Amino acid sequence: MRIIGIDPGLAIVGIGLIEANSAHDLEVLDYLTIETDAKTDFPQRLKEIGQDLGDLLKEYQPELAVIEKLYFSVNEKTALDVAQARGVIVSTIATHGAQIIEPTPSELKSCITGDGRADKKQMQKMVKMIFNLAEIPRPDDAADALALAAFGAFQGKRVSLLA
Amino acid sequence: MRIIGIDPGLAIVGIGLIEANSAHDLEVLDYLTIETDAKTDFPQRLKEIGQDLGDLLKEYQPELAVIEKLYFSVNEKTALDVAQARGVIVSTIATHGAQIIEPTPSELKSCITGDGRADKKQMQKMVKMIFNLAEIPRPDDAADALALAAFGAFQGKRVSLLA
Repeated sequence: MRIIGIDPGLAIVGIGLIEANSAHDLEVLDYLTIETDAKTDFPQRLKEIGQDLGDLLKEYQPELAVIEKLYFSVNEKTALDVAQARGVIVSTIATHGAQIIEPTPSELKSCITGDGRADKKQMQKMVKMIFNLAEIPRPDDAADALALAAFGAFQGKRVSLLA
Repeated sequence: MRIIGIDPGLAIVGIGLIEANSAHDLEVLDYLTIETDAKTDFPQRLKEIGQDLGDLLKEYQPELAVIEKLYFSVNEKTALDVAQARGVIVSTIATHGAQIIEPTPSELKSCITGDGRADKKQMQKMVKMIFNLAEIPRPDDAADALALAAFGAFQGKRVSLLA
Protein backbone atom coordinates (compact mmCIF):
# COMPACT_ATOMS: atom_id res chain seq x y z
CA MET A 1 0.00 0.00 0.00
CA ARG A 2 1.26 3.43 -0.90
CA ILE A 3 0.98 5.95 1.94
CA ILE A 4 1.57 9.69 2.23
CA GLY A 5 2.28 11.26 5.63
CA ILE A 6 1.76 15.01 5.87
CA ASP A 7 2.91 17.43 8.56
CA PRO A 8 0.77 20.50 7.82
CA GLY A 9 1.93 24.11 7.93
CA LEU A 10 1.75 27.36 6.01
CA ALA A 11 5.47 28.13 5.60
CA ILE A 12 6.51 24.48 5.40
CA VAL A 13 4.56 21.28 4.79
CA GLY A 14 6.44 18.04 5.49
CA ILE A 15 5.72 15.17 3.11
CA GLY A 16 6.75 11.53 3.44
CA LEU A 17 5.88 8.97 0.77
CA ILE A 18 6.28 5.29 1.52
CA GLU A 19 5.43 1.90 0.13
CA ALA A 20 4.23 -0.50 2.82
CA ASN A 21 4.55 -4.08 1.61
CA SER A 22 3.79 -5.20 5.14
CA ALA A 23 4.05 -3.58 8.57
CA HIS A 24 7.60 -4.93 8.66
CA ASP A 25 8.57 -4.05 5.14
CA LEU A 26 8.38 -0.30 4.69
CA GLU A 27 10.22 1.52 1.94
CA VAL A 28 10.72 5.28 1.70
CA LEU A 29 9.84 6.48 -1.80
CA ASP A 30 10.57 10.13 -1.14
CA TYR A 31 10.49 12.78 1.52
CA LEU A 32 10.35 16.47 0.88
CA THR A 33 8.81 19.76 1.92
CA ILE A 34 6.45 22.18 0.22
CA GLU A 35 7.57 25.65 1.24
CA THR A 36 5.83 28.98 0.73
CA ASP A 37 7.39 32.40 0.99
CA ALA A 38 6.24 34.71 3.81
CA LYS A 39 6.48 37.58 1.29
CA THR A 40 3.89 35.95 -0.97
CA ASP A 41 0.32 36.91 -0.17
CA PHE A 42 -1.73 34.50 1.91
CA PRO A 43 -4.26 33.29 -0.71
CA GLN A 44 -1.41 32.60 -3.15
CA ARG A 45 0.46 30.58 -0.50
CA LEU A 46 -2.61 28.42 0.11
CA LYS A 47 -3.06 27.96 -3.63
CA GLU A 48 0.57 26.86 -4.03
CA ILE A 49 0.22 24.29 -1.25
CA GLY A 50 -2.90 22.83 -2.90
CA GLN A 51 -1.30 22.72 -6.34
CA ASP A 52 2.03 21.24 -5.25
CA LEU A 53 0.30 18.61 -3.14
CA GLY A 54 -2.09 17.84 -6.01
CA ASP A 55 0.91 17.24 -8.29
CA LEU A 56 2.46 14.84 -5.75
CA LEU A 57 -0.82 12.94 -5.36
CA LYS A 58 -1.07 12.55 -9.13
CA GLU A 59 2.53 11.36 -9.33
CA TYR A 60 2.50 8.91 -6.42
CA GLN A 61 -1.18 7.94 -6.23
CA PRO A 62 -1.19 7.10 -2.49
CA GLU A 63 -4.20 5.14 -1.25
CA LEU A 64 -3.86 6.35 2.31
CA ALA A 65 -3.00 9.77 3.74
CA VAL A 66 -2.05 10.36 7.37
CA ILE A 67 -2.29 13.91 8.73
CA GLU A 68 -1.82 14.83 12.35
CA LYS A 69 -4.96 16.09 14.07
CA LEU A 70 -4.86 19.79 14.92
CA TYR A 71 -4.32 20.83 18.46
CA PHE A 72 -4.30 24.33 19.80
CA SER A 73 -0.84 25.81 19.94
CA VAL A 74 0.20 28.56 22.30
CA ASN A 75 0.36 30.95 19.37
CA GLU A 76 -3.19 31.59 18.21
CA LYS A 77 -2.20 33.40 15.01
CA THR A 78 0.02 30.51 13.94
CA ALA A 79 -2.69 27.99 14.84
CA LEU A 80 -5.19 29.71 12.55
CA ASP A 81 -2.68 29.89 9.69
CA VAL A 82 -1.79 26.21 10.06
CA ALA A 83 -5.50 25.33 10.28
CA GLN A 84 -6.23 27.11 7.02
CA ALA A 85 -3.33 25.40 5.27
CA ARG A 86 -4.48 22.08 6.72
CA GLY A 87 -7.96 22.67 5.29
CA VAL A 88 -6.46 23.02 1.82
CA ILE A 89 -4.41 19.85 2.34
CA VAL A 90 -7.33 17.74 3.60
CA SER A 91 -9.66 18.91 0.84
CA THR A 92 -7.00 18.31 -1.84
CA ILE A 93 -6.58 14.73 -0.61
CA ALA A 94 -10.35 14.16 -0.41
CA THR A 95 -10.67 15.46 -3.97
CA HIS A 96 -7.93 13.07 -5.04
CA GLY A 97 -9.83 10.23 -3.38
CA ALA A 98 -7.33 8.79 -0.88
CA GLN A 99 -8.52 7.59 2.51
CA ILE A 100 -7.49 9.90 5.37
CA ILE A 101 -6.59 9.06 8.96
CA GLU A 102 -5.88 11.73 11.56
CA PRO A 103 -3.95 10.62 14.65
CA THR A 104 -3.50 12.96 17.57
CA PRO A 105 0.11 13.88 18.43
CA SER A 106 0.06 11.47 21.38
CA GLU A 107 -1.41 8.61 19.32
CA LEU A 108 1.38 9.15 16.81
CA LYS A 109 4.13 9.22 19.44
CA SER A 110 2.70 6.21 21.22
CA CYS A 111 2.55 4.19 18.01
CA ILE A 112 6.08 5.05 16.89
CA THR A 113 7.94 4.99 20.22
CA GLY A 114 5.57 3.37 22.73
CA ASP A 115 5.49 6.63 24.68
CA GLY A 116 2.73 9.19 23.97
CA ARG A 117 4.96 11.92 25.34
CA ALA A 118 8.17 11.02 23.49
CA ASP A 119 10.38 13.93 22.46
CA LYS A 120 11.34 14.89 18.93
CA LYS A 121 14.76 13.24 19.15
CA GLN A 122 13.30 9.89 20.17
CA MET A 123 10.74 10.08 17.37
CA GLN A 124 13.44 10.84 14.81
CA LYS A 125 15.63 7.96 15.98
CA MET A 126 12.69 5.61 15.54
CA VAL A 127 11.94 6.97 12.06
CA LYS A 128 15.54 6.28 11.06
CA MET A 129 15.26 2.75 12.45
CA ILE A 130 11.80 1.91 11.06
CA PHE A 131 12.82 2.88 7.53
CA ASN A 132 16.39 1.60 7.88
CA LEU A 133 17.87 4.96 6.87
CA ALA A 134 21.53 5.96 7.12
CA GLU A 135 20.65 9.36 8.57
CA ILE A 136 17.78 11.05 10.38
CA PRO A 137 15.75 12.75 7.62
CA ARG A 138 15.96 16.55 7.49
CA PRO A 139 14.23 18.89 7.98
CA ASP A 140 12.17 17.93 11.03
CA ASP A 141 8.96 18.42 9.08
CA ALA A 142 9.93 15.66 6.65
CA ALA A 143 10.92 13.32 9.50
CA ASP A 144 7.53 14.01 11.14
CA ALA A 145 5.79 13.24 7.87
CA LEU A 146 7.59 9.89 7.60
CA ALA A 147 6.52 9.08 11.16
CA LEU A 148 2.93 9.79 10.14
CA ALA A 149 3.27 7.55 7.08
CA ALA A 150 4.61 4.77 9.34
CA PHE A 151 1.58 5.26 11.60
CA GLY A 152 -0.56 4.58 8.53
CA ALA A 153 1.38 1.41 7.74
CA PHE A 154 0.92 0.23 11.33
CA GLN A 155 -2.67 1.57 11.28
CA GLY A 156 -2.05 3.05 14.68
CA LYS A 157 -0.82 -0.20 16.25
CA ARG A 158 2.72 -0.44 17.41
CA VAL A 159 4.66 -3.15 15.59
CA SER A 160 7.79 -4.73 16.99
CA LEU A 161 10.87 -4.14 14.88
CA LEU A 162 12.28 -7.52 15.94
CA ALA A 163 9.88 -9.55 13.82
CA MET B 1 -17.63 44.94 -11.11
CA ARG B 2 -18.87 41.55 -9.99
CA ILE B 3 -18.21 40.80 -6.33
CA ILE B 4 -18.65 37.72 -4.14
CA GLY B 5 -18.95 38.10 -0.37
CA ILE B 6 -18.29 34.97 1.67
CA ASP B 7 -19.05 34.26 5.32
CA PRO B 8 -16.92 31.17 5.99
CA GLY B 9 -17.97 28.15 8.04
CA LEU B 10 -17.88 24.37 8.01
CA ALA B 11 -21.60 23.61 8.47
CA ILE B 12 -22.77 26.68 6.56
CA VAL B 13 -21.01 29.08 4.21
CA GLY B 14 -22.88 32.29 3.40
CA ILE B 15 -22.52 33.56 -0.17
CA GLY B 16 -23.61 36.90 -1.60
CA LEU B 17 -23.13 37.75 -5.27
CA ILE B 18 -23.54 41.31 -6.44
CA GLU B 19 -22.94 43.52 -9.42
CA ALA B 20 -21.54 46.92 -8.46
CA ASN B 21 -22.09 49.40 -11.27
CA SER B 22 -20.95 52.13 -8.89
CA ALA B 23 -20.79 52.46 -5.11
CA HIS B 24 -24.36 53.78 -5.31
CA ASP B 25 -25.67 51.27 -7.78
CA LEU B 26 -25.43 47.79 -6.29
CA GLU B 27 -27.51 44.90 -7.53
CA VAL B 28 -27.93 41.54 -5.79
CA LEU B 29 -27.42 38.73 -8.30
CA ASP B 30 -27.95 35.93 -5.81
CA TYR B 31 -27.51 34.97 -2.21
CA LEU B 32 -27.33 31.46 -0.92
CA THR B 33 -25.57 29.10 1.45
CA ILE B 34 -23.35 26.08 0.95
CA GLU B 35 -24.25 23.62 3.70
CA THR B 36 -22.48 20.45 4.76
CA ASP B 37 -23.89 17.66 6.87
CA ALA B 38 -22.35 17.04 10.31
CA LYS B 39 -22.80 13.32 9.63
CA THR B 40 -20.54 13.51 6.58
CA ASP B 41 -16.85 12.97 7.34
CA PHE B 42 -14.67 16.03 7.68
CA PRO B 43 -12.48 15.69 4.55
CA GLN B 44 -15.61 15.15 2.44
CA ARG B 45 -17.23 18.28 3.89
CA LEU B 46 -14.17 20.36 2.98
CA LYS B 47 -14.16 18.86 -0.50
CA GLU B 48 -17.85 19.73 -0.99
CA ILE B 49 -17.26 23.33 0.06
CA GLY B 50 -14.40 23.67 -2.44
CA GLN B 51 -16.37 22.07 -5.26
CA ASP B 52 -19.61 24.00 -4.70
CA LEU B 53 -17.73 27.28 -4.41
CA GLY B 54 -15.71 26.43 -7.52
CA ASP B 55 -18.96 25.89 -9.45
CA LEU B 56 -20.28 29.29 -8.31
CA LEU B 57 -17.03 31.02 -9.28
CA LYS B 58 -17.22 29.46 -12.74
CA GLU B 59 -20.85 30.50 -13.11
CA TYR B 60 -20.58 34.08 -11.85
CA GLN B 61 -16.91 34.91 -12.59
CA PRO B 62 -16.52 37.50 -9.81
CA GLU B 63 -13.44 39.74 -10.07
CA LEU B 64 -13.34 40.49 -6.36
CA ALA B 65 -13.95 38.27 -3.32
CA VAL B 66 -14.46 39.62 0.19
CA ILE B 67 -13.96 37.22 3.12
CA GLU B 68 -13.99 38.27 6.73
CA LYS B 69 -10.66 37.93 8.49
CA LEU B 70 -10.54 35.18 11.09
CA TYR B 71 -10.63 36.09 14.71
CA PHE B 72 -10.41 33.74 17.62
CA SER B 73 -13.78 32.65 18.87
CA VAL B 74 -14.47 31.49 22.39
CA ASN B 75 -14.90 27.97 21.09
CA GLU B 76 -11.48 26.71 20.02
CA LYS B 77 -12.78 23.57 18.31
CA THR B 78 -15.19 25.59 16.18
CA ALA B 79 -12.47 28.16 15.37
CA LEU B 80 -10.18 25.44 14.01
CA ASP B 81 -12.99 23.92 11.93
CA VAL B 82 -13.95 27.30 10.50
CA ALA B 83 -10.27 28.07 9.82
CA GLN B 84 -9.84 24.85 7.85
CA ALA B 85 -12.99 25.55 5.81
CA ARG B 86 -11.77 29.11 5.26
CA GLY B 87 -8.45 27.78 3.94
CA VAL B 88 -10.32 25.77 1.31
CA ILE B 89 -12.40 28.83 0.38
CA VAL B 90 -9.42 31.20 0.07
CA SER B 91 -7.38 28.73 -1.95
CA THR B 92 -10.33 27.98 -4.26
CA ILE B 93 -10.73 31.70 -4.97
CA ALA B 94 -6.98 32.19 -5.50
CA THR B 95 -7.01 29.26 -7.94
CA HIS B 96 -9.95 30.86 -9.75
CA GLY B 97 -7.95 34.09 -9.96
CA ALA B 98 -10.19 36.68 -8.25
CA GLN B 99 -8.66 39.38 -6.08
CA ILE B 100 -9.29 38.85 -2.35
CA ILE B 101 -9.80 41.41 0.40
CA GLU B 102 -10.15 40.43 4.04
CA PRO B 103 -11.76 42.99 6.34
CA THR B 104 -11.82 42.48 10.09
CA PRO B 105 -15.27 42.20 11.69
CA SER B 106 -14.98 45.77 13.00
CA GLU B 107 -13.84 47.17 9.63
CA LEU B 108 -16.86 45.52 8.06
CA LYS B 109 -19.30 46.86 10.64
CA SER B 110 -17.78 50.32 10.52
CA CYS B 111 -18.04 50.45 6.73
CA ILE B 112 -21.64 49.25 6.60
CA THR B 113 -23.13 51.01 9.63
CA GLY B 114 -20.54 53.61 10.69
CA ASP B 115 -20.15 51.76 13.99
CA GLY B 116 -17.42 49.12 14.35
CA ARG B 117 -19.40 47.52 17.17
CA ALA B 118 -22.81 47.46 15.47
CA ASP B 119 -25.03 44.50 16.31
CA LYS B 120 -26.35 41.91 13.87
CA LYS B 121 -29.77 43.54 13.60
CA GLN B 122 -28.32 46.91 12.63
CA MET B 123 -26.08 45.27 10.03
CA GLN B 124 -29.01 43.41 8.53
CA LYS B 125 -31.16 46.56 8.33
CA MET B 126 -28.35 48.28 6.45
CA VAL B 127 -27.95 45.34 4.06
CA LYS B 128 -31.66 45.54 3.25
CA MET B 129 -31.34 49.29 2.64
CA ILE B 130 -28.08 49.21 0.65
CA PHE B 131 -29.45 46.63 -1.77
CA ASN B 132 -32.99 48.00 -1.73
CA LEU B 133 -34.46 44.64 -0.74
CA ALA B 134 -38.03 44.02 0.38
CA GLU B 135 -36.91 41.77 3.25
CA ILE B 136 -33.82 41.12 5.33
CA PRO B 137 -32.06 38.23 3.58
CA ARG B 138 -32.17 34.88 5.39
CA PRO B 139 -30.35 33.05 6.81
CA ASP B 140 -27.97 35.37 8.72
CA ASP B 141 -24.98 33.86 6.93
CA ALA B 142 -26.30 35.05 3.56
CA ALA B 143 -27.02 38.54 4.95
CA ASP B 144 -23.46 38.67 6.33
CA ALA B 145 -22.12 37.63 2.93
CA LEU B 146 -24.02 40.44 1.23
CA ALA B 147 -22.59 42.91 3.76
CA LEU B 148 -19.12 41.67 2.84
CA ALA B 149 -19.86 42.06 -0.88
CA ALA B 150 -21.03 45.66 -0.19
CA PHE B 151 -17.76 46.27 1.66
CA GLY B 152 -15.99 45.25 -1.55
CA ALA B 153 -18.09 47.65 -3.60
CA PHE B 154 -17.26 50.47 -1.18
CA GLN B 155 -13.65 49.16 -0.96
CA GLY B 156 -13.84 49.63 2.77
CA LYS B 157 -14.97 53.27 2.58
CA ARG B 158 -18.37 54.18 3.84
CA VAL B 159 -20.57 55.64 1.14
CA SER B 160 -23.56 57.81 1.92
CA LEU B 161 -26.85 56.35 0.78
CA LEU B 162 -28.24 59.86 0.14
CA ALA B 163 -26.19 60.48 -2.98
